Amino acid sequence: MGIVLNGGTIVTAADVYQADVRIEGESIVAIGYEIKQPGDQVINVDGCFLFPGGIDPHTHFDLPVGDMSTSDDFSSGTEAALMGGTTTILDFATQFKGETLKKGLQNWHLKADGKSFVDYGFHMAITNWNDRIVHEMKEIVQKEGVPSFKFYMAYKNVMQVDDSALLQALRQAGECGALVCVHCENGDVVDNLVQRARIQGHTAPLYHPLTRPPEAEAEATSRVITLAQIADAPLYIVHLTCSGALQAVTNAKLNGLEVYAETCPQYLLLDDSSYRAEGFNGAKYVISPPLRPIQHQEVLWSGLRTGVLDTIATDHCAFNYKGQKDLGLHDFSKIPSGAPGVETRMGLLYTYGVMTGKLTINQFVALTSTNAAKLFGLYPRKGTLAPGSDADIVVWDPRVSSVITVRTLHQQVDYTPFEGYKQIGQATHVFMRGTQVVQDAKLRVQQPTGIYLSRKPFLKRKVGGNDVQS
Amino acid sequence: MGIVLNGGTIVTAADVYQADVRIEGESIVAIGYEIKQPGDQVINVDGCFLFPGGIDPHTHFDLPVGDMSTSDDFSSGTEAALMGGTTTILDFATQFKGETLKKGLQNWHLKADGKSFVDYGFHMAITNWNDRIVHEMKEIVQKEGVPSFKFYMAYKNVMQVDDSALLQALRQAGECGALVCVHCENGDVVDNLVQRARIQGHTAPLYHPLTRPPEAEAEATSRVITLAQIADAPLYIVHLTCSGALQAVTNAKLNGLEVYAETCPQYLLLDDSSYRAEGFNGAKYVISPPLRPIQHQEVLWSGLRTGVLDTIATDHCAFNYKGQKDLGLHDFSKIPSGAPGVETRMGLLYTYGVMTGKLTINQFVALTSTNAAKLFGLYPRKGTLAPGSDADIVVWDPRVSSVITVRTLHQQVDYTPFEGYKQIGQATHVFMRGTQVVQDAKLRVQQPTGIYLSRKPFLKRKVGGNDVQS
Amino acid sequence: MGIVLNGGTIVTAADVYQADVRIEGESIVAIGYEIKQPGDQVINVDGCFLFPGGIDPHTHFDLPVGDMSTSDDFSSGTEAALMGGTTTILDFATQFKGETLKKGLQNWHLKADGKSFVDYGFHMAITNWNDRIVHEMKEIVQKEGVPSFKFYMAYKNVMQVDDSALLQALRQAGECGALVCVHCENGDVVDNLVQRARIQGHTAPLYHPLTRPPEAEAEATSRVITLAQIADAPLYIVHLTCSGALQAVTNAKLNGLEVYAETCPQYLLLDDSSYRAEGFNGAKYVISPPLRPIQHQEVLWSGLRTGVLDTIATDHCAFNYKGQKDLGLHDFSKIPSGAPGVETRMGLLYTYGVMTGKLTINQFVALTSTNAAKLFGLYPRKGTLAPGSDADIVVWDPRVSSVITVRTLHQQVDYTPFEGYKQIGQATHVFMRGTQVVQDAKLRVQQPTGIYLSRKPFLKRKVGGNDVQS
Amino acid sequence: MGIVLNGGTIVTAADVYQADVRIEGESIVAIGYEIKQPGDQVINVDGCFLFPGGIDPHTHFDLPVGDMSTSDDFSSGTEAALMGGTTTILDFATQFKGETLKKGLQNWHLKADGKSFVDYGFHMAITNWNDRIVHEMKEIVQKEGVPSFKFYMAYKNVMQVDDSALLQALRQAGECGALVCVHCENGDVVDNLVQRARIQGHTAPLYHPLTRPPEAEAEATSRVITLAQIADAPLYIVHLTCSGALQAVTNAKLNGLEVYAETCPQYLLLDDSSYRAEGFNGAKYVISPPLRPIQHQEVLWSGLRTGVLDTIATDHCAFNYKGQKDLGLHDFSKIPSGAPGVETRMGLLYTYGVMTGKLTINQFVALTSTNAAKLFGLYPRKGTLAPGSDADIVVWDPRVSSVITVRTLHQQVDYTPFEGYKQIGQATHVFMRGTQVVQDAKLRVQQPTGIYLSRKPFLKRKVGGNDVQS
Ligand SMILES: [Zn+2]
Ligand SMILES: [Zn+2]
Ligand SMILES: [Zn+2]
Ligand SMILES: [Zn+2]
Ligand SMILES: [Zn+2]
Ligand SMILES: [Zn+2]
Ligand SMILES: [Zn+2]
Ligand SMILES: [Zn+2]
Repeated sequence: MGIVLNGGTIVTAADVYQADVRIEGESIVAIGYEIKQPGDQVINVDGCFLFPGGIDPHTHFDLPVGDMSTSDDFSSGTEAALMGGTTTILDFATQFKGETLKKGLQNWHLKADGKSFVDYGFHMAITNWNDRIVHEMKEIVQKEGVPSFKFYMAYKNVMQVDDSALLQALRQAGECGALVCVHCENGDVVDNLVQRARIQGHTAPLYHPLTRPPEAEAEATSRVITLAQIADAPLYIVHLTCSGALQAVTNAKLNGLEVYAETCPQYLLLDDSSYRAEGFNGAKYVISPPLRPIQHQEVLWSGLRTGVLDTIATDHCAFNYKGQKDLGLHDFSKIPSGAPGVETRMGLLYTYGVMTGKLTINQFVALTSTNAAKLFGLYPRKGTLAPGSDADIVVWDPRVSSVITVRTLHQQVDYTPFEGYKQIGQATHVFMRGTQVVQDAKLRVQQPTGIYLSRKPFLKRKVGGNDVQS
Repeated sequence: MGIVLNGGTIVTAADVYQADVRIEGESIVAIGYEIKQPGDQVINVDGCFLFPGGIDPHTHFDLPVGDMSTSDDFSSGTEAALMGGTTTILDFATQFKGETLKKGLQNWHLKADGKSFVDYGFHMAITNWNDRIVHEMKEIVQKEGVPSFKFYMAYKNVMQVDDSALLQALRQAGECGALVCVHCENGDVVDNLVQRARIQGHTAPLYHPLTRPPEAEAEATSRVITLAQIADAPLYIVHLTCSGALQAVTNAKLNGLEVYAETCPQYLLLDDSSYRAEGFNGAKYVISPPLRPIQHQEVLWSGLRTGVLDTIATDHCAFNYKGQKDLGLHDFSKIPSGAPGVETRMGLLYTYGVMTGKLTINQFVALTSTNAAKLFGLYPRKGTLAPGSDADIVVWDPRVSSVITVRTLHQQVDYTPFEGYKQIGQATHVFMRGTQVVQDAKLRVQQPTGIYLSRKPFLKRKVGGNDVQS
Repeated sequence: MGIVLNGGTIVTAADVYQADVRIEGESIVAIGYEIKQPGDQVINVDGCFLFPGGIDPHTHFDLPVGDMSTSDDFSSGTEAALMGGTTTILDFATQFKGETLKKGLQNWHLKADGKSFVDYGFHMAITNWNDRIVHEMKEIVQKEGVPSFKFYMAYKNVMQVDDSALLQALRQAGECGALVCVHCENGDVVDNLVQRARIQGHTAPLYHPLTRPPEAEAEATSRVITLAQIADAPLYIVHLTCSGALQAVTNAKLNGLEVYAETCPQYLLLDDSSYRAEGFNGAKYVISPPLRPIQHQEVLWSGLRTGVLDTIATDHCAFNYKGQKDLGLHDFSKIPSGAPGVETRMGLLYTYGVMTGKLTINQFVALTSTNAAKLFGLYPRKGTLAPGSDADIVVWDPRVSSVITVRTLHQQVDYTPFEGYKQIGQATHVFMRGTQVVQDAKLRVQQPTGIYLSRKPFLKRKVGGNDVQS
Repeated sequence: MGIVLNGGTIVTAADVYQADVRIEGESIVAIGYEIKQPGDQVINVDGCFLFPGGIDPHTHFDLPVGDMSTSDDFSSGTEAALMGGTTTILDFATQFKGETLKKGLQNWHLKADGKSFVDYGFHMAITNWNDRIVHEMKEIVQKEGVPSFKFYMAYKNVMQVDDSALLQALRQAGECGALVCVHCENGDVVDNLVQRARIQGHTAPLYHPLTRPPEAEAEATSRVITLAQIADAPLYIVHLTCSGALQAVTNAKLNGLEVYAETCPQYLLLDDSSYRAEGFNGAKYVISPPLRPIQHQEVLWSGLRTGVLDTIATDHCAFNYKGQKDLGLHDFSKIPSGAPGVETRMGLLYTYGVMTGKLTINQFVALTSTNAAKLFGLYPRKGTLAPGSDADIVVWDPRVSSVITVRTLHQQVDYTPFEGYKQIGQATHVFMRGTQVVQDAKLRVQQPTGIYLSRKPFLKRKVGGNDVQS
């Protein structure tokens, strides 16, 4: 007794074709014509696209920052994700000062357990390097299903690690089947510019981008690529925002290095003129790296089109404008850094990527789902529509159009940076592991049904010589 | 009453997964589990990969060259293709001096009609430009199912066209839904160097590569990219061989131009040391462009891996060593230029691409089949394994290994440039539009069953502004 | 009995220092302190710079174009040059259809003989290639003192030569001690775009730049660099205007090729917005290559600063707005192409190069004089201030400032593209081979005193291996 | 009563011409013909070149390293310099841990005072950054005549400074008229690789280059260029050795940044095969950065030819093979790093640069003298041959040839890396501030006559807009 989705157009990272999809239990079991079995429920999805459930590999739910936490926890954040067509998220479990990795991971399991509306996994963010961690990394990969580690080159004196730590971590990751993810901004530079701006009496949100220039990101990106090369390790650059950093990744790929990169909708669609918004409104856009001058946008789109960029995440890290962002009313450097986005990702990319001709619909699927699944050990369970895969299916109706507004979003934060943006298409129905959890754009389940995803190790590309010949 | 392929691993340009494939009539009708219908024949393909039938977009069967013709005609050439796992070829119908395009096309239909073991289409090669042709191009696209035109920047005084013709053709192609394919070598340079070498008394095959330097190819490639940019037209570079040309295509793609490029196994696996083979044996490798110094190989592999190169064709243009190549025994410039390859393409790429880790198995499928189908108006009928597509399926057994030798190939030519090369895997069974035409690596049909493929126009990428928003 | 210039600051391509200069006869005989000899005339030049006389390596005086000639002949043109601080010019003696090179050269000698106020040499422009010319080139270099040849890649069906001719010419030049100078625009492209614009009914000057896009120049520049590389010959690109072409020259130099390039003040200071001037005024700026979008300017300045560009010429090719330019009133393609500039070059470069900090004063001298002298076989007779050199000295008073206007220029043409531009400094006094020909910014001689300069062959750079060691 | 050098060929960074030079007191007072005054001594230098005295901007005389000091002190080191044609050196006065800059500088004055055979200045090397130093820098520039500071990105836990310090130093230097000089290698990377090699039991000199890969230099070079850009400060890269670093400087210059770079003869002429020398002999080549694979050499020569590299220094830092280098006999990381070179620089560059055609003779002078004088506040007193300049003159006889051997060098160290290298030409006579100190290649003075050179502040390039016009 299964479900047959009838009449839709299936889209994968490579293909587009019309066929029915049959679901049984948690999985897709057949795709084709006349595949209905007796007793199956048939759901008509005529005129709709069927996408693999979106995967957002970069969220920060329930993250403690100073005395507060991000406003979306695993409950509200994942509900928002789901309503936007995302059925899997990867959040950053963070090891704080003095903690073991295991401890950090446990903390995050407690936050997410039983609360998530989508399936989830964790990256392990390491902020306090020491020699023992090299050994713990291996255990985390092998026993905890966490084959990815995050490091910060920014946030001096807080989370920043030095090149020595990065190099050791990269080498170990390369050897134990993990992928190192890096936030690339030169923290020394940022810290220096921020201190200088404060000394000069600059307090407005406008000084946020001025103290985190694109050069600081491009530099850190180039540097960590060199470290990965020396360590012979694969590398994943999170939230790449500017042409200099893109150039570094382009060169790396052309030179045969195994470097991957992610960007986010905000860097594709917004620019640094937002920091000049009236009053304190610029604070809504205080994210790190910051929004860039508008000319960087086309460069990033080109990076997506040519495959230099591999994924589109959100870096969803939500703070309320009232009550949180306003901590920095008199000092831009005290504005908590981050913004929401998990709910609007798929719609924005479809609208401003696919509908404008900037991306093919296959690239849309690759960038929002398939590539992340492959990079982060979830494929082929997640990331595609194929027999055997989890039946995580987004039924996307391209005939619906709407305007994004905070009033109708499901996130738990009082603004969206995309207020007023048009959206074409909608995640009308969403299936998660075979269960319809969204129907007619409404949540259909009472309780969260997301589960923890123990992920497979990363398989480093192994290019041998022509040793086949003999 | 269909056929079920049971137990294989399906590979597309994006996915790899285990499932059954059900064929009915000429098409794939379902993929999944428990899809067998009563009366179906079940064929066990345990342990094998199922690839979409290979597409070779660059062959020259039965091509008249001077007083002779290439040694493989549509019968022997397509049989060879089929045995190697290629189920579709695109040959170059050539308009010779004084002919209309239509006349040239008719000539090729006569050559192929009823003789081809694989499905086939034609590109239209234009060698004698005049003003009327601009108009005829449109008709050829719309009425003849030929949405691609080939031009030569080489072969001065024979097939070479000037920039003026190229620009007009590109503009017209861009407007009427066609893709212009270009052989990029600066014919003036080649002609000059050849004449000079002859005057200096140089006669050996070794002078073939010396008179067609990589710079002449890189220059022509850059030039035609500029012409395409000015004409606002898409462009396809055939048989790209060297780093300079690759750099030009890389830049074009990064700059947002719609430029595609093809390379061939010989440029990936052979190098110009072959021209120093004993006696006159270097003549076997006289192809244009010539084999390059070995360092270009890694650059081309990198181009494949990063998506700068889109397809792998063969430029199969076979001449017997005895009786044809030896026309140039005393003058390298009289050696007929070309070599066979249509039968060995899939095996070589699997062996030296996939098995060495240089390409993923998805890239292998994209490069040998899917991308050509998409670029040349055959997708989704050809180029993938999906319900609704033609059941052109290669059952590839990776457990078989063999050594390539002219003695066991099906081509009608007395040598192979890949003599002695190891091959891992084999096209054990091949299905063409639902019929099993190869079984246990043996041809199973008596008569050719290939049909002419009328192809769809090319859809130029249309990147608008952010005009969605308003 | 000589002349001593007392109290000035001497500037060469490398040095700046205060010292006296002593002239005897036609030459500088000493530089230093207390070098006055009994009987010497002392001229005080306190507070002034002493520059080597300017060399303009690109003028077209008395050039026949269709039924008319450029409005400045050798008399008016060289007077203008002199008043602007230029004491040597190189004009293009042109071989027209059916002429031998020798004949072309004789024609130009007749035009210049006895009329020139500055010293002059000729480049030989070859517009009608044939096999005999290869041999004549050598004679022209050895017997006529003309070691530079000019070719056009533009002007289809008029002056354009094909790649075969270029390659032969480059090879011959490389062997016989000459430098090939090339006007780089793809003539096929330009011709096609012009015809198309005309068919579409476009008649305004605005269509001039639109039919000669920067890509057409970049392409031709890249192409001829490749030809020079294949011919193993040095190359000089005339009037480079755009970033694409500059990139090609940059790459060539970094790759060790011997490629030189020239730009002109109009490309550094004007942009294509001029073509939108009121009424038909855009015609004043119809030059080839055309003025470019303004962003190219900074790129060219950077090319000057980094040494990618070697010389600044004028391409002085003057047509009166009334009576000549207006031939194209109803068809932009009939506007005679060219503009004046020989008189304003030094002042503009000093003002907008040196005074803005974009160039050092040494670079100013190198670009306006020394480099041209070295490239074109005139050094050390011309191009520097040193004992033994011709006493061609510009006494430049940096305290004077003025506004450029056609009313005060000495050229014989009814407009200047630089009308209203500010000029800092002035060629107060000018000495030519020891004679003061300009005094207090007034011409001091009645009769032209310029002589023909027979130039030395070009010495190709010969980079051997480390063969010194043994 | 002066000296007249009669019959030589004067070479400057721009010019070559034959003339006499008249010296009076410490200066050149005239250049030309018939400039002899009654009572002058005439020295015939027929057939010789006259070069400006060489300037070596990078030496380490009497530098304490651990328990020992470099084997050449200011006496032996400067005698060697002089004999090789170098009349000015700039040594690195080093602030060690806990010292003020002033204290560091005093220490160096004590080392040099009264001992130097050539004129000398100091760079200030800052190894122990703290906030007070920012202020002290200004004083050092203004009161001590030291407008250049050196920082190390390598030597972790010893001299390495972090990006924060570098950024502050660059900003301050940019504001107070100083040039920051940086040793670019990523110290974290080097330290990590060295520790790892030691753990793996690698002890041989061969591990020196393997633990300091070119990527570590390229990375640091790119990084500090970014820091300079952010600080809006000029930058000087010392001892650049590899293509990646050169690329970074090339890009910086093309992008308009004020970045200068130096290389050394050892990187142009030696390669990393030297580390495989028999026994422990590889230790002789243990310098930092290390010698590179041979393909980097041509890239560096190209950098010199195109002006990407500005100066050729020696990094003379001599340790005896016996008694010093052998401290690392059982641990490559204990080999004191450095090698001699001050005496052989001019001869090697003349022989392997000028004589091979890789450099013009003007470039030779620019690279060995003029450019350093201009960058380090010594021009026009030093760095050229012109009236008013110090009479530091090298009479170079190009007819002499010899073989370099430690037996005939004047340095105080038991080997030369250039043993057996051929040298063409010789500094037959050398004049320092008007006194002949070398005659017929023999030292002619008993006592050192070199003086301390208080240098002028660095004038940052100021490129304004087109603000001249208005
Ligand atoms: Zn981040
Ligand atoms: Zn984040
Ligand atoms: Zn071809
Ligand atoms: Zn072909
Ligand atoms: Zn021209
Ligand atoms: Zn011209
Ligand atoms: Zn150093
Ligand atoms: Zn040093």
